[in-house]
Amino acid sequence: MSNAHDPIRLGMVGGGQGAFIGGVHRIASRIDDRFRLVAGALSSNAERASASAEELGIAPDRSYASFEEMAKAEAAREDGIEAVSIVTPNHMHAAPAIAFLEAGIHVICDKPLAATPEDARRIEEAVKASKARFFLTHNYTGYPLIRQARQMVANGDLGEIRLINAEYLQDWMAESGVESSGNKQAEWRTDPAKSGAGAIGDIGTHALNLATFVTGKAPTKLACELQSFGEGRRVDDNAHILLHFEGGARGTLWCSQVAIGNENGVRLRVYGTKGGIEWHQENPNQLFYTPIGEPTRRLTRGGAGLGSGGGDWTRIPPGHPEGYLEGFANLYTDVADAIRGRGDAALVPDIASGLEGMWFIDACQRSSQADGAWIDR
Amino acid sequence: MSNAHDPIRLGMVGGGQGAFIGGVHRIASRIDDRFRLVAGALSSNAERASASAEELGIAPDRSYASFEEMAKAEAAREDGIEAVSIVTPNHMHAAPAIAFLEAGIHVICDKPLAATPEDARRIEEAVKASKARFFLTHNYTGYPLIRQARQMVANGDLGEIRLINAEYLQDWMAESGVESSGNKQAEWRTDPAKSGAGAIGDIGTHALNLATFVTGKAPTKLACELQSFGEGRRVDDNAHILLHFEGGARGTLWCSQVAIGNENGVRLRVYGTKGGIEWHQENPNQLFYTPIGEPTRRLTRGGAGLGSGGGDWTRIPPGHPEGYLEGFANLYTDVADAIRGRGDAALVPDIASGLEGMWFIDACQRSSQADGAWIDR
Amino acid sequence: MSNAHDPIRLGMVGGGQGAFIGGVHRIASRIDDRFRLVAGALSSNAERASASAEELGIAPDRSYASFEEMAKAEAAREDGIEAVSIVTPNHMHAAPAIAFLEAGIHVICDKPLAATPEDARRIEEAVKASKARFFLTHNYTGYPLIRQARQMVANGDLGEIRLINAEYLQDWMAESGVESSGNKQAEWRTDPAKSGAGAIGDIGTHALNLATFVTGKAPTKLACELQSFGEGRRVDDNAHILLHFEGGARGTLWCSQVAIGNENGVRLRVYGTKGGIEWHQENPNQLFYTPIGEPTRRLTRGGAGLGSGGGDWTRIPPGHPEGYLEGFANLYTDVADAIRGRGDAALVPDIASGLEGMWFIDACQRSSQADGAWIDR
Amino acid sequence: MSNAHDPIRLGMVGGGQGAFIGGVHRIASRIDDRFRLVAGALSSNAERASASAEELGIAPDRSYASFEEMAKAEAAREDGIEAVSIVTPNHMHAAPAIAFLEAGIHVICDKPLAATPEDARRIEEAVKASKARFFLTHNYTGYPLIRQARQMVANGDLGEIRLINAEYLQDWMAESGVESSGNKQAEWRTDPAKSGAGAIGDIGTHALNLATFVTGKAPTKLACELQSFGEGRRVDDNAHILLHFEGGARGTLWCSQVAIGNENGVRLRVYGTKGGIEWHQENPNQLFYTPIGEPTRRLTRGGAGLGSGGGDWTRIPPGHPEGYLEGFANLYTDVADAIRGRGDAALVPDIASGLEGMWFIDACQRSSQADGAWIDR
Repeated sequence: MSNAHDPIRLGMVGGGQGAFIGGVHRIASRIDDRFRLVAGALSSNAERASASAEELGIAPDRSYASFEEMAKAEAAREDGIEAVSIVTPNHMHAAPAIAFLEAGIHVICDKPLAATPEDARRIEEAVKASKARFFLTHNYTGYPLIRQARQMVANGDLGEIRLINAEYLQDWMAESGVESSGNKQAEWRTDPAKSGAGAIGDIGTHALNLATFVTGKAPTKLACELQSFGEGRRVDDNAHILLHFEGGARGTLWCSQVAIGNENGVRLRVYGTKGGIEWHQENPNQLFYTPIGEPTRRLTRGGAGLGSGGGDWTRIPPGHPEGYLEGFANLYTDVADAIRGRGDAALVPDIASGLEGMWFIDACQRSSQADGAWIDR
Repeated sequence: MSNAHDPIRLGMVGGGQGAFIGGVHRIASRIDDRFRLVAGALSSNAERASASAEELGIAPDRSYASFEEMAKAEAAREDGIEAVSIVTPNHMHAAPAIAFLEAGIHVICDKPLAATPEDARRIEEAVKASKARFFLTHNYTGYPLIRQARQMVANGDLGEIRLINAEYLQDWMAESGVESSGNKQAEWRTDPAKSGAGAIGDIGTHALNLATFVTGKAPTKLACELQSFGEGRRVDDNAHILLHFEGGARGTLWCSQVAIGNENGVRLRVYGTKGGIEWHQENPNQLFYTPIGEPTRRLTRGGAGLGSGGGDWTRIPPGHPEGYLEGFANLYTDVADAIRGRGDAALVPDIASGLEGMWFIDACQRSSQADGAWIDR
Repeated sequence: MSNAHDPIRLGMVGGGQGAFIGGVHRIASRIDDRFRLVAGALSSNAERASASAEELGIAPDRSYASFEEMAKAEAAREDGIEAVSIVTPNHMHAAPAIAFLEAGIHVICDKPLAATPEDARRIEEAVKASKARFFLTHNYTGYPLIRQARQMVANGDLGEIRLINAEYLQDWMAESGVESSGNKQAEWRTDPAKSGAGAIGDIGTHALNLATFVTGKAPTKLACELQSFGEGRRVDDNAHILLHFEGGARGTLWCSQVAIGNENGVRLRVYGTKGGIEWHQENPNQLFYTPIGEPTRRLTRGGAGLGSGGGDWTRIPPGHPEGYLEGFANLYTDVADAIRGRGDAALVPDIASGLEGMWFIDACQRSSQADGAWIDR
Repeated sequence: MSNAHDPIRLGMVGGGQGAFIGGVHRIASRIDDRFRLVAGALSSNAERASASAEELGIAPDRSYASFEEMAKAEAAREDGIEAVSIVTPNHMHAAPAIAFLEAGIHVICDKPLAATPEDARRIEEAVKASKARFFLTHNYTGYPLIRQARQMVANGDLGEIRLINAEYLQDWMAESGVESSGNKQAEWRTDPAKSGAGAIGDIGTHALNLATFVTGKAPTKLACELQSFGEGRRVDDNAHILLHFEGGARGTLWCSQVAIGNENGVRLRVYGTKGGIEWHQENPNQLFYTPIGEPTRRLTRGGAGLGSGGGDWTRIPPGHPEGYLEGFANLYTDVADAIRGRGDAALVPDIASGLEGMWFIDACQRSSQADGAWIDR
């Protein structure tokens, strides 16, 4: 029987040598020492899978050739994994997610939920049918000041929400042909069969999730124009989106992979009847808050004048920056708490966020094909 | 006969006591000592007109009760005014503009061009028929680094333009009822008969003009949603706009008067195949420029590594900030040069900019009424 | 008899073609339309003097070959100048200042007060003996938010002042030999006989003045190290200074002309028992204020939550930047008000500021020669 | 026999419940999965020691009541610890450091080196006598852009170094009496017997270390004024320091714990004959670099245009911020590499840095007592 101090036994699907996001998940899971990575199906390439496992200190008998095998074997072990991180390309989320959910193992899945709406629905059904939980790593919600912002909106500090503006600007795809230059990330992310979408799936869903997480308002309809500026690019690399939200708020969302000079320019601005806030991911330890008729305040992570949002979920004093990995770690730690019965992981995005993201991707594509027509939710 | 050193003899219509933009025009005209304000029809209220004139050192016989009288009298004087600044509310631009153009006197008109498309067309005809010139004070184009940005785009430093994003965010109308609180600016600006439009006319046209000035690309179509968040407000106070530009560039424009925490948040971002730029009006002495694959440069007004754009049209060394008034003054000085035959004021917005702005206002309103349908130019 | 609306009749000594600061004074005097430049001894070179006068619209009979002649002639005219701006190199401040003071004409003198302590004392005596007033253009004190900061300190918002840190960093002298490259500014400013000092006189006095203006605390002693990094440079181009102020506050002042990447990096930080403030000249429309135990506020010129300091002495709404010239103009306008009996120009630096600056220059030089020994005031 | 993949077996002295820096060391050691914490003498309070050990998953038989016992027992075990982290208050560094060095166990010691020069010398001797290595966690040197800056200086990008300015500003001691309010950190840090010094030891040594690490120039003499603004405070809470460095560079260092509005304002500026750099710890993913006569570049961690300094020692792509913990982790990972024979940890501060810091503390105190006299190294 596990007690509260025991680390969660964690498995991983994907994330072998050469992958990117798997390593991020592993660090995030380690930061607060709440997980032990003990099993993996790290690559569909058997050699790479076992080399990766060795490097990560996974025992050879728990390095599996397939996720199916892993789900079955781990479910059968007394010391089997309690949770699994799925960090494969989008089109390979559904099958392992379903397998582990069916095996009663909690699933921590990278975003977006899936490459197709069909896959998404299948995951949804598996979630409903399972006693295990499903978490989606829209990791920006783990930033303390984003949680602070959410609390402020909930507290009414901004009054009624009128305007929501979310951006996620990058430039790594600015050059045509980056996807055929040997960049593996670019390769699968621009293959519609693997990714399901381009910028809107990869980063647009993050921006949307941030907007709805902070404001508590779901989108009710959208109009979108997608562009593919890279020559021969098979997925969108830029999107301009108009949004309506519950309660009458209006908004815009801009995501781009060709905006030269932007690395990971995630930015959120929310304006209500009583105040406004502004936050940039590249300096996430500051949140600018303006109460109507007063000077703008610079709130800092863990700093003066905050609700719990800016002070909880942080490990070091204000002025010492925490970053992307610590924000990501907050999701993992919330999940660990929930598994150990010390919390409910209410702030961690789940299947509902995933389905909202899938609606977003699909609606953007349909709207863009229809010359920017409005698509209801 | 005037020589190059002689100041331009200037008149003014509007701008009496209690007005705002008239004073700005007067300072702008003075900064480089190229104009003398010698005549005015400063107010439709006779008493205020003459009190204002006295305060400004205008001789009593050149303080007129009406612009018609002024146009006639000044045209007849040997030392009559050479140019007139029209700084009345929007619905009172057309009549004086036409009168002075017909009198052969150059017109410097505040933006937007007019309150209605009909008025705009009448001004256009008068411009065509007159030997005098017509200038529109989209003053943000006078900022040296905006001119620098325009040169950089023209030089191809950014490659082919893909994306144009313009914003103009304010918060002075965030509170419902500000227009009935005795704020004269708010009063006429929210009266559709006087302004013709809300945020899109007052600030949206500035944002559009900045985008087209810098990129040299005219809009070819737009889709728009207007909002009026202030209760009972009769004009728009927020607009979300999607744009197509000549040459295939796509863009967005957001203007708002209810975005709490923004004073005059004019911001332009342009991304091409070879580079990107970013500029904020509130700190206009910096322009951020990123060539593809290189670190971002912070260009400064008059500073190292600039073309003439950042070094001309400035009075003091880099690091000593110039502001809004100096940018505005650059338009006046260009006009003075043109009148004195030392330049062609090619960078000063003219009737074409005015008509583009009128199309923009009208198209936004029609699109918004048609649920965000695309409106071609 | 002049009335309140009449512009002040102004003369100028120095500021002919090729000079820098004269032009700045002229713009500053014009911005609020409170002065008319009607006389000048613009250059010691007769030809340049009269060409400059013609360009500036000064009548030939009021363009003088020498300041002595000008003082005499203007004092004798019924419409003679009421004030004179002295914008010559430092070693040529004393003679004209004294001549005009003796002629009963108000003097607006560029800083630093003089090139030598002897000159400074002679000016001081002339000020005491004259009914005319003497003003010194430490122009940074004209920035609205600097005046706001002064009010806040006076109001006790910062509590007892503990720490004062002033910087003025430039880089235009970073290259050795700039003074022999034909740069006239560099030439006289590095000639000890003309300037009296290098960075400490040219920019260090500004930094000190800013510190004492805002805090109301005079320095009581200092220790200084001067450096001359430029090869063969005959004056200091960098200074590190420790300061004690009245009331027990301690501080540091750093001025440099060789800090590459800084244009006019004037920066002031003041910390007391109840709060702290920070201000940068390069974006002067913002003042950061932190009350103890609360988040930092970004105060803006004319913006929300200010005392009169940030709202007076400004011409345009918040968010539209004012700059160096408007700050400079505030001194001129205060002087005009004082001359016309509408104010006392209490915020304009005067002979006391000038003498404080001369003590500072002298003390820095003596301390540096004595290996950084403390020099009492 | 350990191989390269095996984690380092780590012990810890101090860092029990209620402590601060111990937790930071543990996270830093975990981030790259190169250490396993397997033993500890976590508190001098036996109960707290064992409760802390249990919480951290340390086996009961490796939770020791004293560091002496731990050093002896671990040295005797075949699977004994390979390195120990010493995270006790300053006056308790020397004894355990010496014990473990004598036991042949590598020591990772928090800074400053010791509370007294005598202790420092004893550690130095132990380091010389031991085959084990000694590392000092001046963690700011682990920031990738600080290492980039160091490379740039070494490459000559800045030319000959002229000026070095380091700051470390905090405000947590601004209120008098914080040390007697139950704040344990404040308590021991203001007790001269435990800390040896105030701000100069706690944060001044960091600032100095950063300056010398980046520039490669050691200080040759200094002059200092210490202040204790908090009433009754027994150690300094502010210091103003003038410095001479090898090669003729001059500098200043300012550290403060009473500068309201600063959380952990570590800032470094270095100016040479060919360029300048500026870096702020609170947004450590940016480094501003200005080559002489060119615009300032904003270099980003892992971003375009960097040498290895900004690209190595980082885990995630540019634009996703890394922070304090990742910078700290870089030291631990370098140490792990060195222990496993894959590197030499040349960038990790060692006993020499520690001794330099001790000289600095002592020289500041002696200089301040001598009214700011220069103290040679």
